[in-house]
Amino acid sequence: MRPISWNGPMWTAAEIVDRLRERGELWEPVRGAVGLRGETLRLYEELAAAIGTLTRSVAEEEWRVPAVLDFASLARADYFASFPQWLTVASHLSSDPGRLERLARSADPAGLVGAMSDPCEAALPPAVCYHVYPRFAGQRVDSPTLVTVEGTCWRHEGKRLFPLERGWAFTMREVVCLGTRDAVETFRRRGIAATRALLATLGLGGEVLPATDPFFAPTARGRRILQALKGLKHELRLPSGPAADLAAASFNHHENFFGEAFKIRLPDGTPAASGCVAFGLERWLLAFLATHGPDSAAWPSIFPDTPWKRTVSNPMEEAS
Amino acid sequence: MRPISWNGPMWTAAEIVDRLRERGELWEPVRGAVGLRGETLRLYEELAAAIGTLTRSVAEEEWRVPAVLDFASLARADYFASFPQWLTVASHLSSDPGRLERLARSADPAGLVGAMSDPCEAALPPAVCYHVYPRFAGQRVDSPTLVTVEGTCWRHEGKRLFPLERGWAFTMREVVCLGTRDAVETFRRRGIAATRALLATLGLGGEVLPATDPFFAPTARGRRILQALKGLKHELRLPSGPAADLAAASFNHHENFFGEAFKIRLPDGTPAASGCVAFGLERWLLAFLATHGPDSAAWPSIFPDTPWKRTVSNPMEEAS
Repeated sequence: MRPISWNGPMWTAAEIVDRLRERGELWEPVRGAVGLRGETLRLYEELAAAIGTLTRSVAEEEWRVPAVLDFASLARADYFASFPQWLTVASHLSSDPGRLERLARSADPAGLVGAMSDPCEAALPPAVCYHVYPRFAGQRVDSPTLVTVEGTCWRHEGKRLFPLERGWAFTMREVVCLGTRDAVETFRRRGIAATRALLATLGLGGEVLPATDPFFAPTARGRRILQALKGLKHELRLPSGPAADLAAASFNHHENFFGEAFKIRLPDGTPAASGCVAFGLERWLLAFLATHGPDSAAWPSIFPDTPWKRTVSNPMEEAS
Repeated sequence: MRPISWNGPMWTAAEIVDRLRERGELWEPVRGAVGLRGETLRLYEELAAAIGTLTRSVAEEEWRVPAVLDFASLARADYFASFPQWLTVASHLSSDPGRLERLARSADPAGLVGAMSDPCEAALPPAVCYHVYPRFAGQRVDSPTLVTVEGTCWRHEGKRLFPLERGWAFTMREVVCLGTRDAVETFRRRGIAATRALLATLGLGGEVLPATDPFFAPTARGRRILQALKGLKHELRLPSGPAADLAAASFNHHENFFGEAFKIRLPDGTPAASGCVAFGLERWLLAFLATHGPDSAAWPSIFPDTPWKRTVSNPMEEAS
């Protein structure tokens, strides 16, 4: 296993964020949620476009997913037992005029908002692929089916939040594959190959390593062990400082977990397998900046490469 | 005043939404939040690009704004007194392991989520321009300053929600202008002229009419009357059915309201004026479909026009 290394100088995440703040190109009005502008925003958009091109070249179609997710779909995906620690929810204020007026006249409205809200109605999505499985519920998948989506995701990680590195709200681009077990495994391997090609284009070091999801221990310990034993998850770890790295993409085989949960079937009536390849866009930005530095003069050009394109016509063919 | 009319056949919003649902190109997992795919998504993206081009041609820069807004900025903008009825907030689950475990083991986790959440921490933005004013707080504006932003906005309107027409979560593109009172008024008039030109390109009827904001009556009645008397708000109303229309853009002069609230000053030390031009993207999609029908064969081509471009070099010059 090669180390996650880069031979040039390397900036720390704190140094990068300080420099961007000084230039007014990054701000964080709420812990875990950043705004971007200027050259940093242009770089972010180029990276997002390169990753978007990579995913669109393999997925037959792209969806624009809603900003909220229904609790029933999350429950069906066993999310509350698997990752309750991350969940973020949306509520709106009460429609009761008396309560609204009390808030409107308050000298400290921010302190009253919680007490004036109706019960939460929906989840802010912890991953964009949770929008995809429910749309195939009860359907038959006759050939490998690929969908790409990008959207804001929400995972609350308490004191670990740090700008670009770990957001409460961050941007995820995913490709979801539904099909046979083999088709999903081929898709996953091809995703790894395409991502490695993109790393070379961007001049980034990094390594794809076996990984597990941080399942909520009291209710899902067995799943983590099985996931590791079966090699169902890999992560791309990108260097984010002289002695730091972070997971900037993941390559996941869910076996028939979502196929069973949402009754998505293959032509022979058995549950479909699924997999997803997910990219955390702000982390790519941080890794790029930690590697190439905060000054745009030193940034290499980004040429979106589309290594998956060649293989779309035969998704069962092995990745080279 | 010309009527809001269109001489061809016109579809109702319900007919459009039914047709898109049948085609699987629109879905609504949570009331007020839609997903899009297929030809409808391509049309949405073309409309968003045309409006984005229009706004980018006048604004010197574009920002990518965070997904959440701090309560302090909303309070400083007097939002809680002005529009508390719309406010939507984000909370995350408790980090207490015992409470998380109770949720994770529950047979009805969705029903328990509210009781297991920490107090809400931030607002989901009701308009993207609320991200802009705080960034200029305490600063001096030496010349007209224009910023464009696009993002998801949240306004809960109870039983009035209807797909594309009125979303809980929807997409807003705005240009904010800070400067002298006259510069803001010129910006606002130019926004109206550019928007009318875009209507012609898209083959849409519509009319720009005086309007007021739906201020929360018990605390802000005076503001609505003043706004109407001074002609500070206009709305673009687009036809959305044979006997229906909706506000698809607004052109707002705030006078020195935000300049005072955020201590944004002109060179002479007085509070800056501000204005914004805002487009509700899903409403443009609905008006286009109601006018041209749901079948893509009948859609006119969209050529992004940039009528503001010519005037950027001299923002004080009168709109033609």
